[in-house]
Amino acid sequence: MAQPVNRQWLLTSRPRGLLKESDFTWNESQIPEPAEGQALVRNIYLSLDPTNRGWASDRTTYMPPVELGTPMRGFAIGIVEKSHHPDFQEGQLLEGFFGWQDFCLTDGNHVTPVHLDPELPLSAHFGLFAHIGLTAYFGLLEIGEPKPGETLVVSGAAGAVGSLVGQIGKIKGCHVVGIAGTDEKCHWLTEELGFDGAINYKAEKVQPRLKELCPDGIDVIFENVGGPILDASLSLMNLHARVALCGLISMYNAEKMVPGPFGFPYVLVRRAKIQGFIIGDYMHRAAEAIPEITHWYKEGKLKYRLDIVDGLEEAPKVVNRLFDGSHKGKLLVQVSDEPGA
Amino acid sequence: MAQPVNRQWLLTSRPRGLLKESDFTWNESQIPEPAEGQALVRNIYLSLDPTNRGWASDRTTYMPPVELGTPMRGFAIGIVEKSHHPDFQEGQLLEGFFGWQDFCLTDGNHVTPVHLDPELPLSAHFGLFAHIGLTAYFGLLEIGEPKPGETLVVSGAAGAVGSLVGQIGKIKGCHVVGIAGTDEKCHWLTEELGFDGAINYKAEKVQPRLKELCPDGIDVIFENVGGPILDASLSLMNLHARVALCGLISMYNAEKMVPGPFGFPYVLVRRAKIQGFIIGDYMHRAAEAIPEITHWYKEGKLKYRLDIVDGLEEAPKVVNRLFDGSHKGKLLVQVSDEPGA
Repeated sequence: MAQPVNRQWLLTSRPRGLLKESDFTWNESQIPEPAEGQALVRNIYLSLDPTNRGWASDRTTYMPPVELGTPMRGFAIGIVEKSHHPDFQEGQLLEGFFGWQDFCLTDGNHVTPVHLDPELPLSAHFGLFAHIGLTAYFGLLEIGEPKPGETLVVSGAAGAVGSLVGQIGKIKGCHVVGIAGTDEKCHWLTEELGFDGAINYKAEKVQPRLKELCPDGIDVIFENVGGPILDASLSLMNLHARVALCGLISMYNAEKMVPGPFGFPYVLVRRAKIQGFIIGDYMHRAAEAIPEITHWYKEGKLKYRLDIVDGLEEAPKVVNRLFDGSHKGKLLVQVSDEPGA
Repeated sequence: MAQPVNRQWLLTSRPRGLLKESDFTWNESQIPEPAEGQALVRNIYLSLDPTNRGWASDRTTYMPPVELGTPMRGFAIGIVEKSHHPDFQEGQLLEGFFGWQDFCLTDGNHVTPVHLDPELPLSAHFGLFAHIGLTAYFGLLEIGEPKPGETLVVSGAAGAVGSLVGQIGKIKGCHVVGIAGTDEKCHWLTEELGFDGAINYKAEKVQPRLKELCPDGIDVIFENVGGPILDASLSLMNLHARVALCGLISMYNAEKMVPGPFGFPYVLVRRAKIQGFIIGDYMHRAAEAIPEITHWYKEGKLKYRLDIVDGLEEAPKVVNRLFDGSHKGKLLVQVSDEPGA
């Protein structure tokens, strides 16, 4: 499936609201040759993530905007096809910001070798580890500081990160309630993943349902959504609650400034902590998390599901599944075959 | 000045917007007799604080609402007039929630003996210590975690707490900018207290002025105000900034829910921490703070000013100086004379 050309999606206009295919331009160019100190990487799995929306805007988020006319930024797993870089060998698996394209040159900056347990499939890397599993692990444990018997609420709970957060919360002895957008997802959370409760925010009133499902109040909020969903949780916080602020997906497509939570004064009166984080802040500690996550997975305590879409062509269309909630599990684009496939 | 009766301001209706004199009823009753296990305290200085507004509402903040028909809650310094309590002796100075009245019975709950350095006047207790100085000390140092060379922004900077926060920030080697509501206050901050800059939010555009005065961005925000003032600071936060959320005075008189900060997404992208606190959480550590604050004061590094109003009758009127900003320094009502006066 290796391509004779390098197919790319260039970002060519700034989106308003949702990302649209017309914001991108399909481009085919020659496969580049690595210079001294560079390696050529072929993308295998391209990860589509809510944060992609922010990168496409003209505002600096935690990274500068993608420049117009360049390949859309995307986190991916790839394989080294040619290397003139001392640290990388042909056939080696790497993860990095390889973008919405078949091939990418890298000088090794922000690139990490993928060391996957030989018993696990390559796609498990994005199901359990990488920016997904490590976000769940460090965000929950370092910022949320869950203690046995406490109540954890996860929004975006059926998402790639949220579903792991809830399961790790259960491992840590918490009462775990998830908020998701379909009955099917809620069923998956409670019946397959062991959540104690789940709320379909599209069909139920979130605040009164949370109150029912969290009779002892809320100690830890793992927030992926923001807006009224966050407000509902804030109003039920116990003293000294912790909010791990991982995402605000309800705001990413807003065209003007959106107010913060109406429940903001609860942060004061309940003496709570809200802390934002991105996984980049913890990547250097990956070696702490990976063995533990692997162990939990092999014990059957952590499950994940993937939503793998075949073909780079599909990326601009399917990325919006993240925002309408129609994806089921970690959303990936398969750009080319796994080694040995 | 001891009264033959116990004069009291009872809270008799829930305020809408600002506290009004008509929300209170003046009452004169017999001075109560302490039972076994109780002491009778005569109020000397009654502290008026922004948080009083919240206590008068029907919502539980960090304390339950003041019940209608009972004396308005207020923090005060008093002197023991009679004691049938094993821990308290006649003539001893105490601090506690003695209320808007001349006399109060206490069973010792939430009451602390006042141990003031003999070189300091009694009123210094509310200028430098008590819930004022300890709020500044622990909020800034424990939550703000200021480091030398960092930039600290204080809102409500000319207030009792804010003015100490900025000075402690200078002691800790920070670049300190205050936001206050008059030119006179701003002048006091920069010329008397050593702030590096001050912004009159009623006369100047806060965000562009903050940008000028904080050329390296903001690392620590000590927030007393909320609303657009907080938004201006959030937009200039550096990575891993800390927001010590001490008060939201701009919201206390609101009659309906007020949106949270429009700049809330900055908490995510700058990976910042917002943490609410009240001094009650740190009171057990007062012994750490008091010697250090005393030392700084005697070295001339900490200054304070008091706005002392004579007479309990004045309390309902003057409490609103906290909200219109017309007070200058810690607002106290002198209810009766100091011992030896």
